[in-house]
Amino acid sequence: MMYVSRKEHFNAAHKLYNPKWSKEQNVKVFGPCANDNWHGHNFDLITTVKGWPDDETGFVIDLKQLSTLIRREIIDKVDHKNLNMDVPFMEGKLASCENLIIEFWNILEPLIPTIAADAKLHSLKLYETPRNYVEYFGS
Amino acid sequence: MMYVSRKEHFNAAHKLYNPKWSKEQNVKVFGPCANDNWHGHNFDLITTVKGWPDDETGFVIDLKQLSTLIRREIIDKVDHKNLNMDVPFMEGKLASCENLIIEFWNILEPLIPTIAADAKLHSLKLYETPRNYVEYFGS
Amino acid sequence: MMYVSRKEHFNAAHKLYNPKWSKEQNVKVFGPCANDNWHGHNFDLITTVKGWPDDETGFVIDLKQLSTLIRREIIDKVDHKNLNMDVPFMEGKLASCENLIIEFWNILEPLIPTIAADAKLHSLKLYETPRNYVEYFGS
Amino acid sequence: MMYVSRKEHFNAAHKLYNPKWSKEQNVKVFGPCANDNWHGHNFDLITTVKGWPDDETGFVIDLKQLSTLIRREIIDKVDHKNLNMDVPFMEGKLASCENLIIEFWNILEPLIPTIAADAKLHSLKLYETPRNYVEYFGS
Amino acid sequence: MMYVSRKEHFNAAHKLYNPKWSKEQNVKVFGPCANDNWHGHNFDLITTVKGWPDDETGFVIDLKQLSTLIRREIIDKVDHKNLNMDVPFMEGKLASCENLIIEFWNILEPLIPTIAADAKLHSLKLYETPRNYVEYFGS
Amino acid sequence: MMYVSRKEHFNAAHKLYNPKWSKEQNVKVFGPCANDNWHGHNFDLITTVKGWPDDETGFVIDLKQLSTLIRREIIDKVDHKNLNMDVPFMEGKLASCENLIIEFWNILEPLIPTIAADAKLHSLKLYETPRNYVEYFGS
Repeated sequence: MMYVSRKEHFNAAHKLYNPKWSKEQNVKVFGPCANDNWHGHNFDLITTVKGWPDDETGFVIDLKQLSTLIRREIIDKVDHKNLNMDVPFMEGKLASCENLIIEFWNILEPLIPTIAADAKLHSLKLYETPRNYVEYFGS
Repeated sequence: MMYVSRKEHFNAAHKLYNPKWSKEQNVKVFGPCANDNWHGHNFDLITTVKGWPDDETGFVIDLKQLSTLIRREIIDKVDHKNLNMDVPFMEGKLASCENLIIEFWNILEPLIPTIAADAKLHSLKLYETPRNYVEYFGS
Repeated sequence: MMYVSRKEHFNAAHKLYNPKWSKEQNVKVFGPCANDNWHGHNFDLITTVKGWPDDETGFVIDLKQLSTLIRREIIDKVDHKNLNMDVPFMEGKLASCENLIIEFWNILEPLIPTIAADAKLHSLKLYETPRNYVEYFGS
Repeated sequence: MMYVSRKEHFNAAHKLYNPKWSKEQNVKVFGPCANDNWHGHNFDLITTVKGWPDDETGFVIDLKQLSTLIRREIIDKVDHKNLNMDVPFMEGKLASCENLIIEFWNILEPLIPTIAADAKLHSLKLYETPRNYVEYFGS
Repeated sequence: MMYVSRKEHFNAAHKLYNPKWSKEQNVKVFGPCANDNWHGHNFDLITTVKGWPDDETGFVIDLKQLSTLIRREIIDKVDHKNLNMDVPFMEGKLASCENLIIEFWNILEPLIPTIAADAKLHSLKLYETPRNYVEYFGS
Repeated sequence: MMYVSRKEHFNAAHKLYNPKWSKEQNVKVFGPCANDNWHGHNFDLITTVKGWPDDETGFVIDLKQLSTLIRREIIDKVDHKNLNMDVPFMEGKLASCENLIIEFWNILEPLIPTIAADAKLHSLKLYETPRNYVEYFGS
């Protein structure tokens, strides 16, 4: 197996807020991340695909096609958006990196073989800041 | 002269929106940055102070004290905030990096000598993303 | 499983020196790293915790609490210190990154569930320089 | 097990070009990467070795010796070279990162134990740009 | 005055070679950079424009328009190219960063006011590697 | 004028300590930086030379020769050293970045023309950490 990765980025607003809780409880748990009027980040998303390089192309997957797919399916839906208000697949969900990356996985995982028949999504890594990030390998 | 710099960061939401214009005009000029529900960034702010190192301390300015000053006067007011809604000194102003950095300058410039009598604010540099930034040396 | 990471940093002095050897043998094996009077680094420590996001918080672990724990248990004991002389848990041990990371693991591993009952320490990654680093997943 | 890593870099020219195909087919598949007169990159290569730290040295492997080995066996053969024309071990192969990393593995894997008897090559990671990279753990 | 910057990047092959000299002289002066079959880099180009923020937009210059201009006038002509063979404005010139940046300046300087009437090109900074770069403020 | 820069790095131990003061006074002013047993950093040093590119070489200065000069005159004397104890040109001086950079300037400034007759040292920039740095342009 070989693992090929592509990094994309997006800029978005969000807040961490559980609507079932009081404002006090939200502030207690989420601190400044619960700020009513949102805050935001430059997110980096690293997509890793596994497979074996094709004899004719030398590629596990065409990274330009992978980039186009990620941009069309993910970046266009979250870049310069509010993750709590503007993103259909996050509706009713807490806008944490953990919940975001599960949705990203569910979108991308079935689409990878449409670019490279024998390749599979291996992992997603989502940086909220250079110091905080989450990685997911599928359930 | 010697120039000493300190980098701090904050995470904030904003949008670029001129209330004197129609929504169409705002979208035409600011594109996705005019998104109604905001977007956000990890901002980096580099503060540069000029002066000459003190014989007793070897310092132009104590960078720990400078960091404390920047955090108290700037970072605490913009971090995990909405730059259009939550920041008194941005009220009535377009939330562009250019306008932000002028306000940051006006706040910090008179306070530098309270830490180091013979030092002066030389420049501020504000990164909105690793690829877009603005620098200001005072009017 | 999902993997959540937090990066912290500390600045410390150390030398690589085996007291059972002659000075010549130390210099032969460790080269300039055996310099009598120490040298130092800006270390980066990445702590990765595994678990599943909580329904109520959307978190595997609260990264602010994790950061507080790492700072109290590790960073406060090694930052602006001499790793050979000032750090009780390194006494009698060679101050290599490999030995440091084992001690860090032994300290942090039992404490992670005190923050997030169902989470576990997955790995530690310690950068001595941007080009040299070590990773540990427990014995 | 513990994992120790060393980053090296090299600057090289290459093109992606399958000689069995027409020029049109090459341009269709590889786009600008098929440019007749080559293009180039600053490549970063991260070598990860696994083992257990030696009692006497505190090292899994001596990173200075590992760096010397990587430079002599890999970097000296690809740095400031054309990967399609100047590198014997790439002759007759497409100069993709995937194919490069397999050759690097085949060269380094048997040599690691010559430096550290109980250590083994664990993985290689090759960055073509900060946004595109490939990782290999051996077949 | 305020200074606004935008970073773009391109990947290109080049060699340092003075056709008036013998091969020996070229190798003596340029070392491995004179390799017959080229080598290459991931170049970063930072364009800095000076002016004063417009009252209506809050912008010194629209960075999206600036990015489009730089890509059309510079990046499209050098990205995935051979700087010695494929770039009309480098014909007959040594492909050093110093000579490149003068040509970039001559192209961009008259075009900046077509985007922002009162703004001017202030400087260009060209990174050949993270450790080697050149900066130019016009003649 | 054109400005050409080269980044080098070194790893060193130091403490901030004024021998004319009591221990209490040192701790009060320098905080953890006054730790008796030192601490340390990965320092980055950026040397910028100004001049005009030579017609024959396209260079303001040969960066390989500049790198060799900086390593021989500066890096070899501070890398893997204690800046308070092992560095002759720092004897009797507080080991702050400000004092270091003045000494580096005094060493390098007269030597630049020995590599490039018409070039001059323009500035030095010394990073103690990615967030704290000092820049000097000569007295």
